[in-house]
Amino acid sequence: MKRRRFTLVRRPRGTPVAADFALVEEEVPPLAEGEFLVANRFASLDPAIRGWLDDAPSYMPPVPLGEAVRASTVGEVVTSRNPAFPVGQWVVGLNAIETHSVARGDGFTSPVDPGLVPSPTAFLSTLGAVGMTAWFGVERVLMPVHGQTLLVSAAAGAVGSLVGQLGRLRGCRTIGIAGGEAKCRRLVERYGYDAAIDHRGRDADAIAAAIRAAAPDGVDLVFENVGGACLDGALMTLRDGARIALCGLISEYNAPAPVGARNLWQLIVRKATMRGFLVSEWLAEWPEGIAAMAALLAEGKLVADEHIDRGLDQAFPAFMRLFEGGNDGKMILEIV
Amino acid sequence: MKRRRFTLVRRPRGTPVAADFALVEEEVPPLAEGEFLVANRFASLDPAIRGWLDDAPSYMPPVPLGEAVRASTVGEVVTSRNPAFPVGQWVVGLNAIETHSVARGDGFTSPVDPGLVPSPTAFLSTLGAVGMTAWFGVERVLMPVHGQTLLVSAAAGAVGSLVGQLGRLRGCRTIGIAGGEAKCRRLVERYGYDAAIDHRGRDADAIAAAIRAAAPDGVDLVFENVGGACLDGALMTLRDGARIALCGLISEYNAPAPVGARNLWQLIVRKATMRGFLVSEWLAEWPEGIAAMAALLAEGKLVADEHIDRGLDQAFPAFMRLFEGGNDGKMILEIV
Repeated sequence: MKRRRFTLVRRPRGTPVAADFALVEEEVPPLAEGEFLVANRFASLDPAIRGWLDDAPSYMPPVPLGEAVRASTVGEVVTSRNPAFPVGQWVVGLNAIETHSVARGDGFTSPVDPGLVPSPTAFLSTLGAVGMTAWFGVERVLMPVHGQTLLVSAAAGAVGSLVGQLGRLRGCRTIGIAGGEAKCRRLVERYGYDAAIDHRGRDADAIAAAIRAAAPDGVDLVFENVGGACLDGALMTLRDGARIALCGLISEYNAPAPVGARNLWQLIVRKATMRGFLVSEWLAEWPEGIAAMAALLAEGKLVADEHIDRGLDQAFPAFMRLFEGGNDGKMILEIV
Repeated sequence: MKRRRFTLVRRPRGTPVAADFALVEEEVPPLAEGEFLVANRFASLDPAIRGWLDDAPSYMPPVPLGEAVRASTVGEVVTSRNPAFPVGQWVVGLNAIETHSVARGDGFTSPVDPGLVPSPTAFLSTLGAVGMTAWFGVERVLMPVHGQTLLVSAAAGAVGSLVGQLGRLRGCRTIGIAGGEAKCRRLVERYGYDAAIDHRGRDADAIAAAIRAAAPDGVDLVFENVGGACLDGALMTLRDGARIALCGLISEYNAPAPVGARNLWQLIVRKATMRGFLVSEWLAEWPEGIAAMAALLAEGKLVADEHIDRGLDQAFPAFMRLFEGGNDGKMILEIV
């Protein structure tokens, strides 16, 4: 039996190019005891994947050259040597962008029931790592209090759009930063942000001025996905005791070297805290977070958008949308 | 009655120069009801003063042009229209580098008893803002646990030398970063650091390598006074869940623009926290902190060094020692 895989053939330098990857077809390896084969139906394309392509010390080993690119997938078990994961069982797990993944049922693979949701893609978005990043980032890192002002960057993105809505549900005034007029309209009209700021053509000072115009008393909470000018601008508008949840720095993932932030001195004068986090910190509590997000969805209190591109041959351009701002909602690849 | 003052005549651009300041003599203004005149005996020279010289939004208004440079002083009341501060009372307060300060007895001026300490300079060092910065930074921001590894930059400085000793008393393994061989020897021999790293001639990568050599498992706690390569190096060596107390960024105070840190992505992958703080956050608890530090001093558990330059005409070169690393211990100006 053959499988097709989207493999890494060369480590990207800066912005990935198509030639860094290859589509290969190969024989599915035989299953060892305890393993099972998942026919992947959808793969989650996330900015974090960019980090896994580099050979740098991080929270996970880099994707080996010649191997399929790591990603969360949802799919159906089609062969099994693991009684806990029988044929026909749907699972979500950290697998790879490929038609079939060999899985072991370890910590990162869970059985799911696609009958519970309108589409199994929900397990990669609102009920997956993206939804849990928003949920635990808000609940455990920002811990908003009614009446606080929350600033979100990449506010129309998969995580950001949920963070803005969760913040609003907690009684925050929400300000979103996004790229372009159309996204800024979506922030207000679709995700309920109180104000939207277009970062395009604005440096850190101009972003800070725009934040101050929307929040003259400054911001209490920042959910940071972007870094660069967005973060440096946000730092200039903190209120005393502000908290920054540092979730991602997508603006620098393709930079030749880390960029960071220049206005760190504001953390001192504002007695502010910046907390980096990974959603895996609360892995044991995901079931609780998934139940909470599922309930909000069922009650119609959350808008969750997905942008689905179709076909393994579209993996590269679909992935690159994340860095070009070319997706509206959670970026997902349908594996056919 | 005349007083002499060290005044700001021009806002420094980058590194201050002598011509940014002037020594002037003027008539002491008449006291209003509630005011009293302090004959300053010693002034505390601190890196924070550099920030007060800039016209930038911060936690305090900038020193006005033509005014004496703000500094903590200790001295004796010589004229008084405030019954709570009678003539002969010694006080410590946020005044200025001048022979006589007009004070009102507000939150930043407290009566002290110089009979309790070997020298009144103690109220500007171990029992003053410097000592409280170390104490509350360790107790309230870092909250060390026995067996953790603590990294301190500017580790031979007024604050850093106390932080290393407080960390050691709490059961931490302590690593200090300082500039030059002599200071590194002091770290180990005088302040009890377990290891010393000379930052001179080392970039962020080399500093990270040196930290890793001293702490192969990484560092749990960082007390950051310097920024730049020291902070970027430290960021590369964090353990999971590390905490950084951001106290100061002296390496960039004279830079033409803020520098910040490039390796912020490590906060994410290490699930780490950076907390900026000002010692004024715990002003109401200073008496408790002062009592704790006084007890440690009395028990001979703390070494507290002072570097005293003499004469108001030495104010500028004495202040500049802070940025040149030319002082061993708390920098104090004796006002004569």
